[in-house]
Amino acid sequence: MATAVAPKGLEGIVAANSGICWIDGDAGVLAYRGIDIHELASKSTFEEVCYLLWFGKLPTAAELSAFSRELATARTLDPKIIELLQSLPKTGTPMEVLRTTVSALSFYDADEKDNTHDANVRKAYRLTSQIAMIVAIFDRIRKGLPVIEADKSLSHAANFLWMLNGERPSPTAEKALDVALILHADHELNASTFAARVIAATLSDIHSAITGAIGALKGPLHGGANEAVMRLLFAIDKAGEDPVEHVKTMLAEKKKVSGFGHRVYHTEDPRATHLRKMSEDLGHASGNPKWFEMSRKIELFVLAEKKLNANVDFYSASTYTTLGIDIDLFTPIFAVSRISGWAAHVIEQLDDNRLIRPRAEYIGPEYPAKYIPIAER
Amino acid sequence: MATAVAPKGLEGIVAANSGICWIDGDAGVLAYRGIDIHELASKSTFEEVCYLLWFGKLPTAAELSAFSRELATARTLDPKIIELLQSLPKTGTPMEVLRTTVSALSFYDADEKDNTHDANVRKAYRLTSQIAMIVAIFDRIRKGLPVIEADKSLSHAANFLWMLNGERPSPTAEKALDVALILHADHELNASTFAARVIAATLSDIHSAITGAIGALKGPLHGGANEAVMRLLFAIDKAGEDPVEHVKTMLAEKKKVSGFGHRVYHTEDPRATHLRKMSEDLGHASGNPKWFEMSRKIELFVLAEKKLNANVDFYSASTYTTLGIDIDLFTPIFAVSRISGWAAHVIEQLDDNRLIRPRAEYIGPEYPAKYIPIAER
Repeated sequence: MATAVAPKGLEGIVAANSGICWIDGDAGVLAYRGIDIHELASKSTFEEVCYLLWFGKLPTAAELSAFSRELATARTLDPKIIELLQSLPKTGTPMEVLRTTVSALSFYDADEKDNTHDANVRKAYRLTSQIAMIVAIFDRIRKGLPVIEADKSLSHAANFLWMLNGERPSPTAEKALDVALILHADHELNASTFAARVIAATLSDIHSAITGAIGALKGPLHGGANEAVMRLLFAIDKAGEDPVEHVKTMLAEKKKVSGFGHRVYHTEDPRATHLRKMSEDLGHASGNPKWFEMSRKIELFVLAEKKLNANVDFYSASTYTTLGIDIDLFTPIFAVSRISGWAAHVIEQLDDNRLIRPRAEYIGPEYPAKYIPIAER
Repeated sequence: MATAVAPKGLEGIVAANSGICWIDGDAGVLAYRGIDIHELASKSTFEEVCYLLWFGKLPTAAELSAFSRELATARTLDPKIIELLQSLPKTGTPMEVLRTTVSALSFYDADEKDNTHDANVRKAYRLTSQIAMIVAIFDRIRKGLPVIEADKSLSHAANFLWMLNGERPSPTAEKALDVALILHADHELNASTFAARVIAATLSDIHSAITGAIGALKGPLHGGANEAVMRLLFAIDKAGEDPVEHVKTMLAEKKKVSGFGHRVYHTEDPRATHLRKMSEDLGHASGNPKWFEMSRKIELFVLAEKKLNANVDFYSASTYTTLGIDIDLFTPIFAVSRISGWAAHVIEQLDDNRLIRPRAEYIGPEYPAKYIPIAER
């Protein structure tokens, strides 16, 4: 059979047709179902974006209201899941906890054995609500704080902050998280989404696909990048160093500065535009613009020095920190948003499925290598 | 950026260099590290094959002895993992249990935060031993039987059967399982292995990669095929039908007969050759050649009628059933073997890593689609 050799990491290889996400990396354009991310970030809500991603169109007022109610109704976890969360080591990383618990959700899902389009849409509602709950609940458990009941009257973003902090979020905080969730909702065939599609394409269940996606997102080259950005900012601050001098030294030592450059964008990541603004606004509103200001200095220096643009991860770090969110929850919050895109992609994959099974270029010992009996080795 | 459109499912696309597995689909050749599968199936052991896959060469007698000892020493599970297995619903599928429990293993792994080559080799030993234990222990738990302690003096295959059945396996049974484990150990970039590499390439941990691989293997287009074969044989037997007539009707109704054809092989799957023989030998040795004989009739008919060859799944069904193994353990046993190849591929991926991030061909609404205010929709 004829084979064609793809560039390493499948860079530039079109691996699927998809009607979900449009990216023009040269022009710096990101759109969900054709609608520009700038429009969605400024005018939409996370609930509306979920609807758009899953159903391919913007909802009417009645549809959005029904959809939001459905999503809120799905804010329930089997008591066995809470027990599982309580039994896991409190020192475990939230991403290990999320991966393990999402895998366990399938045991208690009413549609577990049903892999049809409609059943997977029902599971998408549940997974979206449950992932947010799991992240918030585990954070409370590990801190020895009481678990907060979901409030079905709140928006998805507000309920997450409520269950995390045990107090009603300010409108500014709710809005900031809602926009962050919109910006992270989908990004075409990023590594975690591609992993989800590879798994789903065996006709395995959506819980398997999402569990695999969480595992991929956990990697420092994917979801972990904003955690690395914040660790850098903390380290510079603790040492009382000048951010530009610190990064200059890193670059001289050929160290990678996280939060810059992107496989797909060759200009500004359109999501960074919003997160920069949010980081700045939150910094000023909270009276602590330090993290924004450090970030801005580093951004301008790296752009001038390396011609690398800040990506989605760079300003989400200072944004989340200013919202009072722990550093190791940054990637879980990425999952709280990206479940919307993962679900859309799994459903799209299954609607027109073919097993994803590429080939390898063999570079090992020449065939046939001899099987030498053990006594003669 | 230039993109190239790949065939659906990445068929025929070379997605990675690999020195682990050589397949010639036209000639029906499968080799691990250059050594033909026929040589390995007739002369090697699963332990030796693990060594070959992980270290790229056949071990000396001393190396094999040390390796086998190391693998046996890794037959331990944290008591919290046993508790987790006891807490999961007994009606859960063994693949859901395996996916969830393997994800949880990372909490108790001494090298959890170490993603170096050497640490991942250590984790490969542990995962190989632990996956076999988890499959056996959950089967005992769900049947209300006492959990059997691992016996570190036994081979990997014998210990698995011991922990599953609570009695020492016959030499024939041990040998049959050992050969099945050798045959399933690796198969280049099959969907689960590819999923593992996509996940590992984000620099996520090996537990994430293997958890994702288990999720992929769970799919009926991948690991689930031999279960479907056995369900067909049971159904034909229960109805007292003629196997050929039954399959003839299925084909006339355009139903897919599982266990035939393969994305990569266009001649006999070389693994089927051994499994056919094993199914036949075990059938005769056990005095119950029924499943082999039914299988053989179906194989010859499908080959004549559709020019489709039996694949690895077709005769593993009757082989496992004749060994007394429950139908829903077939795919978990596939994982008991394939962990060896998954680990080899994850380690190889990390030794020369690049993020695996392809592109999609956008087929959605034309950009820029208008964001219509909700009142006007």
